[in-house]
Amino acid sequence: MSGQFPDEPDSPELSQLYDDFKREHLTPLWTQLDELMPLQPKPKALPHVWRWDTLFPLAARSGDLVPVGRGGERRAIALANPGLPGTAYATPTLWAAIQYLGPHEVAPEHRHSQNAFRFVCEGEGVWTVVNGDPVAMSRGDFLLTPGWNFHGHHNETDQPMAWIDGLDIPFVHYTDTSFFEFGSERVTDEATPPISRSERLWAHPGLRPLSGLQNTVSSPIGAYRWVHTDAALDEQLALEDEGYPATVELGHAAIRYTNPTTGGDVLPTIRAEFHRLRAGATTRRRREVGSSVWQVFDGAGTVTLADETHEVAKGDLFVVPSWVPWTFRAAPGDSTFDLFRFSDAPVVERLHFDRVQIDTENDPKDAR
Amino acid sequence: MSGQFPDEPDSPELSQLYDDFKREHLTPLWTQLDELMPLQPKPKALPHVWRWDTLFPLAARSGDLVPVGRGGERRAIALANPGLPGTAYATPTLWAAIQYLGPHEVAPEHRHSQNAFRFVCEGEGVWTVVNGDPVAMSRGDFLLTPGWNFHGHHNETDQPMAWIDGLDIPFVHYTDTSFFEFGSERVTDEATPPISRSERLWAHPGLRPLSGLQNTVSSPIGAYRWVHTDAALDEQLALEDEGYPATVELGHAAIRYTNPTTGGDVLPTIRAEFHRLRAGATTRRRREVGSSVWQVFDGAGTVTLADETHEVAKGDLFVVPSWVPWTFRAAPGDSTFDLFRFSDAPVVERLHFDRVQIDTENDPKDAR
Amino acid sequence: MSGQFPDEPDSPELSQLYDDFKREHLTPLWTQLDELMPLQPKPKALPHVWRWDTLFPLAARSGDLVPVGRGGERRAIALANPGLPGTAYATPTLWAAIQYLGPHEVAPEHRHSQNAFRFVCEGEGVWTVVNGDPVAMSRGDFLLTPGWNFHGHHNETDQPMAWIDGLDIPFVHYTDTSFFEFGSERVTDEATPPISRSERLWAHPGLRPLSGLQNTVSSPIGAYRWVHTDAALDEQLALEDEGYPATVELGHAAIRYTNPTTGGDVLPTIRAEFHRLRAGATTRRRREVGSSVWQVFDGAGTVTLADETHEVAKGDLFVVPSWVPWTFRAAPGDSTFDLFRFSDAPVVERLHFDRVQIDTENDPKDAR
Amino acid sequence: MSGQFPDEPDSPELSQLYDDFKREHLTPLWTQLDELMPLQPKPKALPHVWRWDTLFPLAARSGDLVPVGRGGERRAIALANPGLPGTAYATPTLWAAIQYLGPHEVAPEHRHSQNAFRFVCEGEGVWTVVNGDPVAMSRGDFLLTPGWNFHGHHNETDQPMAWIDGLDIPFVHYTDTSFFEFGSERVTDEATPPISRSERLWAHPGLRPLSGLQNTVSSPIGAYRWVHTDAALDEQLALEDEGYPATVELGHAAIRYTNPTTGGDVLPTIRAEFHRLRAGATTRRRREVGSSVWQVFDGAGTVTLADETHEVAKGDLFVVPSWVPWTFRAAPGDSTFDLFRFSDAPVVERLHFDRVQIDTENDPKDAR
Repeated sequence: MSGQFPDEPDSPELSQLYDDFKREHLTPLWTQLDELMPLQPKPKALPHVWRWDTLFPLAARSGDLVPVGRGGERRAIALANPGLPGTAYATPTLWAAIQYLGPHEVAPEHRHSQNAFRFVCEGEGVWTVVNGDPVAMSRGDFLLTPGWNFHGHHNETDQPMAWIDGLDIPFVHYTDTSFFEFGSERVTDEATPPISRSERLWAHPGLRPLSGLQNTVSSPIGAYRWVHTDAALDEQLALEDEGYPATVELGHAAIRYTNPTTGGDVLPTIRAEFHRLRAGATTRRRREVGSSVWQVFDGAGTVTLADETHEVAKGDLFVVPSWVPWTFRAAPGDSTFDLFRFSDAPVVERLHFDRVQIDTENDPKDAR
Repeated sequence: MSGQFPDEPDSPELSQLYDDFKREHLTPLWTQLDELMPLQPKPKALPHVWRWDTLFPLAARSGDLVPVGRGGERRAIALANPGLPGTAYATPTLWAAIQYLGPHEVAPEHRHSQNAFRFVCEGEGVWTVVNGDPVAMSRGDFLLTPGWNFHGHHNETDQPMAWIDGLDIPFVHYTDTSFFEFGSERVTDEATPPISRSERLWAHPGLRPLSGLQNTVSSPIGAYRWVHTDAALDEQLALEDEGYPATVELGHAAIRYTNPTTGGDVLPTIRAEFHRLRAGATTRRRREVGSSVWQVFDGAGTVTLADETHEVAKGDLFVVPSWVPWTFRAAPGDSTFDLFRFSDAPVVERLHFDRVQIDTENDPKDAR
Repeated sequence: MSGQFPDEPDSPELSQLYDDFKREHLTPLWTQLDELMPLQPKPKALPHVWRWDTLFPLAARSGDLVPVGRGGERRAIALANPGLPGTAYATPTLWAAIQYLGPHEVAPEHRHSQNAFRFVCEGEGVWTVVNGDPVAMSRGDFLLTPGWNFHGHHNETDQPMAWIDGLDIPFVHYTDTSFFEFGSERVTDEATPPISRSERLWAHPGLRPLSGLQNTVSSPIGAYRWVHTDAALDEQLALEDEGYPATVELGHAAIRYTNPTTGGDVLPTIRAEFHRLRAGATTRRRREVGSSVWQVFDGAGTVTLADETHEVAKGDLFVVPSWVPWTFRAAPGDSTFDLFRFSDAPVVERLHFDRVQIDTENDPKDAR
Repeated sequence: MSGQFPDEPDSPELSQLYDDFKREHLTPLWTQLDELMPLQPKPKALPHVWRWDTLFPLAARSGDLVPVGRGGERRAIALANPGLPGTAYATPTLWAAIQYLGPHEVAPEHRHSQNAFRFVCEGEGVWTVVNGDPVAMSRGDFLLTPGWNFHGHHNETDQPMAWIDGLDIPFVHYTDTSFFEFGSERVTDEATPPISRSERLWAHPGLRPLSGLQNTVSSPIGAYRWVHTDAALDEQLALEDEGYPATVELGHAAIRYTNPTTGGDVLPTIRAEFHRLRAGATTRRRREVGSSVWQVFDGAGTVTLADETHEVAKGDLFVVPSWVPWTFRAAPGDSTFDLFRFSDAPVVERLHFDRVQIDTENDPKDAR
């Protein structure tokens, strides 16, 4: 702020004016402009890495000490961004948690306007029941529980299981759009089929049922199975090997999960993607308006967030706040570096605030 | 037309007026209204059935007598609606033909603004090469060559192969929107992979490549494989058996082929669907604005078009003109009655002329 | 067609094959390709000019000789393109007619799926009643009667009145999408307000009523008044004079009539525009896929259609078939050259067949 | 929260677990659920009324004490919601301020990703220059400066002028999407035309220039003039008097300002409307998801927000947070009760969180 517009009034008259403003619930713009309207995004949220080796044991301890049931609803432990103290938010818009369900435990049914998904980094044996449709959970699967669908979880095994929950809780809280309703104490269908009815109707490539011709706000597919994600990424790298354009950049394959009724994002507020880097590959440095949460699914490598580089491995989660530059590098060797990502891109894009900046070797440019 | 407005003038003055109209390239509405603007669609096209047992041998004879190559371009024999004499049109908007390619023959590459697909009722061994991407053809596959994509066909076997071509040739001719360009005399890629590159990139359920985020007017999927279509239909009938809503009506499963970038029709002018009736099932009588061509893919049954009922079997093709009521009945027994359909529904719907009328037992209603 | 694929069979076997095709309602592609799929649009419709000096007296004579009433419905005389003999079509898709209503005559109410508009080149005193809303007609006004709205006309004066009707009759006839229903013998509201209720609700720039928040397929505005069209065109030329970009090209102002609920075309099948050329101005030569009908509203000039140049004056109508190049030149002097246009552009664009070619001085290019 | 899930740990082990969570930047859901995901929106923002009689004199005092110029940029004093202490926000998403410009003062040019508008409750004599286009400001006018357009203001008179600024500053701050750039110290065009070039091109009812066929994210109209708004509202009440449906409910006329290229909202994040109540009329009690700011433009009446009723008069501003019920009652007498409104409805609707509840006399229902 220039000296012309001091934060602190320098005359009795101005001091009196500022007092009068305060009493009348008014705030002058000129003392706040820099903070309110920065030249480029200055997120309070910080880039941060959470380690699976830390997360999972803490979740397991909570499994011993805290029951799961009506009232608390879920044994979910949220990533609390160090730059957003006092909240349980990974980013201003996104909530990310590890959820843990012990052997034969049940998380009761409820529904809410918040949109949710689950991503399974390891384990199996839990079924999520969405509006009465049981959806098996296994490593690599991406599951949806869009806003206002009843859902509960139950573990049918003698082993605990943990996974990642992603929701738009912060955004819904911020915009005062939360509705919540309790449902059944137990899940409404205890069947344990390998695939859900939603998949049987909808998860056929390029086909839609004639009984489902109305487009839906969120995807009607309950689970995106690992076998398909893995195959799609493998094919991109194979096509690149054969000389065809199929990847985002050299050695970097990626898919977006979509709503088959529209081709757009799976949820109105959340985008989800899966990225695979060939061993030794590096991404170009880029930054985007909007925030993301990533989880390493397999392999190892480094992620550079702003100017700090982190070694990451399977299960590790990290956050990229708005406009923070990021670069990934896959460790050399034989295995790919696989990462799941979710972001608030639909919010940013539908309201037309999206910008992307990608460094090219000699020519960084704003690709707005 | 009421007697008040005679087609033939009844006075010398009126006769002179009508002569003067004609000389000045003018036509009065009042003598033409009934024909021009009927109370409901009165298509000149007629419901008609073409038999595979007739079609295929004729195609084979043309294979002996007529070469395939530059100039004629394709050995395709079109269904010529008996109500549209002098044309080669199945309906006013749709062209449907059997195309026949002898052992090791090549149909040269070209491109045109007309949108095209192939549907394979039997045989295999031909590859369609679309913009350089070889697409294998096998029984039950549905293949796309959207407008302005170069494409050719080559038979890699010692057997002939035949399939169905569907295009919007009549519509494009009528609207004067045809552009055509010759390409390579031979196909530009003679490889014979089991699946195309387009499928490797795009035919993963609910996923899209990050390298293909621009929506496209037509589907980027080159072939919709039978294995997926068959599974989707089986699942609908199985879900119905389990008590869940999944079918169009009792015993009637159906899918629509879609453009995964939008969830909409595969081509701007052509809708394609596949219908499966459980043995013994009957569809409700319905009529729709717009015309369709159907091919029996498997099983047997009867189709009632307006008031005439036809026994049909594998490979038989039939046409349903606009607003002609149709009912299908699957033969009793063990096997399903499988039918492929294409129509001009995208034309009708995008221009908002769509209406459907479905008979319910006691309550026929206009479901506009 | 190359000699390899003769239209006439040259062997007994081939002759027999062609006979068998015919008997089975089949037509080979290879004898028809050139005509069916030309290298670029080859419309049968011809560029043609109809003179107001001829049209109006003929319409007046029909006013003396032919009644208007139920059965014939309208005293409308259609432009019959010389290239489309036996039809009443201006172009393959568009119908254009002069409608004439004598003093105190009434054209009875009806409705149809065909979309219609009126454009008034001269005169006043008739009200079109659309779904019970009386809409005054005056020189320069553009009025809508979208598909399936009841409408009738009544002349409240002692003078006859004539105007132009534009409809998608040919397109609806071709696609077998016609529905028609008779209504009241007289108009349902004989009031003669200066503006319609639809305008009072909807014709406020940039505003929409909260009671009309559903988007509609066609524009809810019943009449686009000349005062607004004229002002909009004047402003474009004035802005050009002041050095700002506002015109299509130098000296060529133009507006498109729009549906205020979407910003798109007024009718699903018909686009309407108004063009104004500064005295002495010339348009670049351009051609477009799709057909148009133009009427000179004021001033004088020449229109070059393909290679023929016509002098045209107030009231003259002319047709530009698909892909026929056109250039206009305004006569020198003081007055502008004003032209109304309607076309089938929404059909062409919604089905993605649109292409435009505009000549620049040395560099014609395909601006697809 | 049920006793089963205490906020405060009751065992040393649990206490240790919570400590470990905190150290690892983790927060359990079960202690926060009620606050994070309420059963229905529980906005922190409060309904509140600010009086013009208070606001304007304070703005005038700041005009004497605080300069306007580069750095502070604008002499704008924001409504600070009493429920959102420490912020300058009217609601979580919306910023509303009175801006004051003394005689011959200039507010320098800048641009930002934030979307902005001005609404003029009284006065005239200032021009807003938007990307070089001078836009006059007068009582009742609604002016746009969409995101990333350069804009400045200058007062050409010897009188001060004040108006209301509305922006999405809180939303942009929250989502970390702010970009800001300084422009010219003075306005780039000091002309003072009565209407802007944007209006001359775009503010003609139902017409768009052929030079502006690309749809735009925000409205291209720089100012919506009072004369049109007033006429549109008058016509709705007159049509109601004549027995036609034209109003929101009895005696309640309303328009929405729209983007003529799409028919949708003027800005991606902000909806703007104008409401007029007939003297003595009352609105039904309603509540909506999303927040609004209203300003009384003319007349007098009461507004009931939740359970509190306020007398309001010209210039008074009030805030309706999400899901707070509101009812308005126009004072009896001769004059209408006129109110301007803006809201975050585009954010809520594009992300599909919208719900409305309207009380009918005996039958309140959720009209989701």
